[in-house]
Amino acid sequence: MGRKFEEIIEKVKACGKKTVAVSVAQDEAVLEAVRAAKERGIADAILVGDEAKIREIADSIGMDLTGYEIIDEPDMVQASLKAVKLAHDGKADMYMKGLIDSKNFLKSVLDKEVGLRTGGPLSHVCVFDVAGMDRLLFLTDVAFMTYPTLEDKVNIIKNTIPVCRACGVDMPKVAPLAAVEVVNPKMPVTVEAAELTRMCEEGEITGCIVDGPLSMDLAIDKEAAKHKGATDRKIQGDADVLLFPDIHAGNLVYKMLVHLVDVQNGCILTGTKVPAILTSRSDSFETKVNSIALAAVVAEEMKRGV
Amino acid sequence: MGRKFEEIIEKVKACGKKTVAVSVAQDEAVLEAVRAAKERGIADAILVGDEAKIREIADSIGMDLTGYEIIDEPDMVQASLKAVKLAHDGKADMYMKGLIDSKNFLKSVLDKEVGLRTGGPLSHVCVFDVAGMDRLLFLTDVAFMTYPTLEDKVNIIKNTIPVCRACGVDMPKVAPLAAVEVVNPKMPVTVEAAELTRMCEEGEITGCIVDGPLSMDLAIDKEAAKHKGATDRKIQGDADVLLFPDIHAGNLVYKMLVHLVDVQNGCILTGTKVPAILTSRSDSFETKVNSIALAAVVAEEMKRGV
Repeated sequence: MGRKFEEIIEKVKACGKKTVAVSVAQDEAVLEAVRAAKERGIADAILVGDEAKIREIADSIGMDLTGYEIIDEPDMVQASLKAVKLAHDGKADMYMKGLIDSKNFLKSVLDKEVGLRTGGPLSHVCVFDVAGMDRLLFLTDVAFMTYPTLEDKVNIIKNTIPVCRACGVDMPKVAPLAAVEVVNPKMPVTVEAAELTRMCEEGEITGCIVDGPLSMDLAIDKEAAKHKGATDRKIQGDADVLLFPDIHAGNLVYKMLVHLVDVQNGCILTGTKVPAILTSRSDSFETKVNSIALAAVVAEEMKRGV
Repeated sequence: MGRKFEEIIEKVKACGKKTVAVSVAQDEAVLEAVRAAKERGIADAILVGDEAKIREIADSIGMDLTGYEIIDEPDMVQASLKAVKLAHDGKADMYMKGLIDSKNFLKSVLDKEVGLRTGGPLSHVCVFDVAGMDRLLFLTDVAFMTYPTLEDKVNIIKNTIPVCRACGVDMPKVAPLAAVEVVNPKMPVTVEAAELTRMCEEGEITGCIVDGPLSMDLAIDKEAAKHKGATDRKIQGDADVLLFPDIHAGNLVYKMLVHLVDVQNGCILTGTKVPAILTSRSDSFETKVNSIALAAVVAEEMKRGV
């Protein structure tokens, strides 16, 4: 367990240390993650926020602030705009949420002047290292886009491909999931899944292999795919990307994995100029550190991609 | 692991052996499950179908047919109607799908003269014994009702309560699941979940405690509920029934559990006069046997309930 995230961290070290700009950094859990990321050689951090409070928290957790750039800005909205501008201007390689609420964090990400817009919609991807599985699973979208249309799903796939590449998966297999593996006109999700498959076959979606609709067993379990005789499918239990019908399906599976299965995971927001890290209070310490590592390799991949 | 299904089997033995009518019994996997159910004292079986083929398969798997009633009917649709009539007439306590396709099996279940209609809609419930969990989880609906309306969800809950009671859960905690634990007008599922909660509080739904919307972590993980400070909720990580927004969310979680987690499970169709067992080809042998055991305790509960 955890082997594949270790590999990601090794990859970060190889490609040169990255810097994360932290938006409203006076948050104990975030500072702990940032400290671990620095100690493990994953990333340096620029801490934007209320300097007095940042120093107070750092003191209370025995964190040495030597080597961190601190930008003092007590106002939260202003702090988020200053932090995102660092990423916008290329002074930071990724952008991370601190104490600020998600709504204002996203406002800064989407700010027209200093934000991280690229024109397309944002989406969220969660990378899972599941004990016993021979590859990473990329779950999308389990947290950000609520009810994606067909067009949104095309964008979600496009947003996810650089994340896969950054993790060493050059031609990801994308499974648009449903309850069933055949098209049923009464289930719009299956019709859209077939359409995504056609779009990929005809070159409208590139850089990946799409095969849907797929049930979860055919997507992740090679034995089950064999048992069901799915020999004509492009995906036979070996999907990399699990594309969910909507946020409910995605989030319920995501939390089931986190709370019942031996996993490590990291999550980022993509579709942005640089990766944004939007961990939640309930994420574990390791998930926060993994998310910084994930953002770092994706930042490197995006630089190379340009 | 498996302890709780063992308890269910012990319960069947205590309440007197039940009989299952098998629809088109010439199916190797079904006969193996039926044999195990008989050997373990869970249920006797009446095998309806092509007797020659039944005997041939029994021979090939070394199954002794002594003690089984066999009704010879080579026509599949006729066999299903004869088998369901046994359950309809009280000569069998539950009804099980054999080689017949699901569509024709359901036709027999819904047959106006000899079927198992009760007036309300049918729903599917899957009972999970998850390694490390202190209770059973009742997942609904992961296989039958596709896009339940609010009214359907009320019926799903009503259909599920006797299954919980049969398994020893007298006042089940029902969690209408969503991606989030608060009402969001842009997510109809959360609005319906709140309405189900109100209906239960005001006595329109009885025999259970409903609290929704709930995210998966608040539904199943007591530590997470504590961490999130959900002390005002009626469910704090201790849900029994997981009520899914739709079949996609339900089925994806269900198959994730089956394929990645150490579980035992059994499934039945409810809302019928007697429990119907509609296992699929991809279900394991143990799941088929567990489903017969589950149907048997539910059959007993329904008799007592009348």
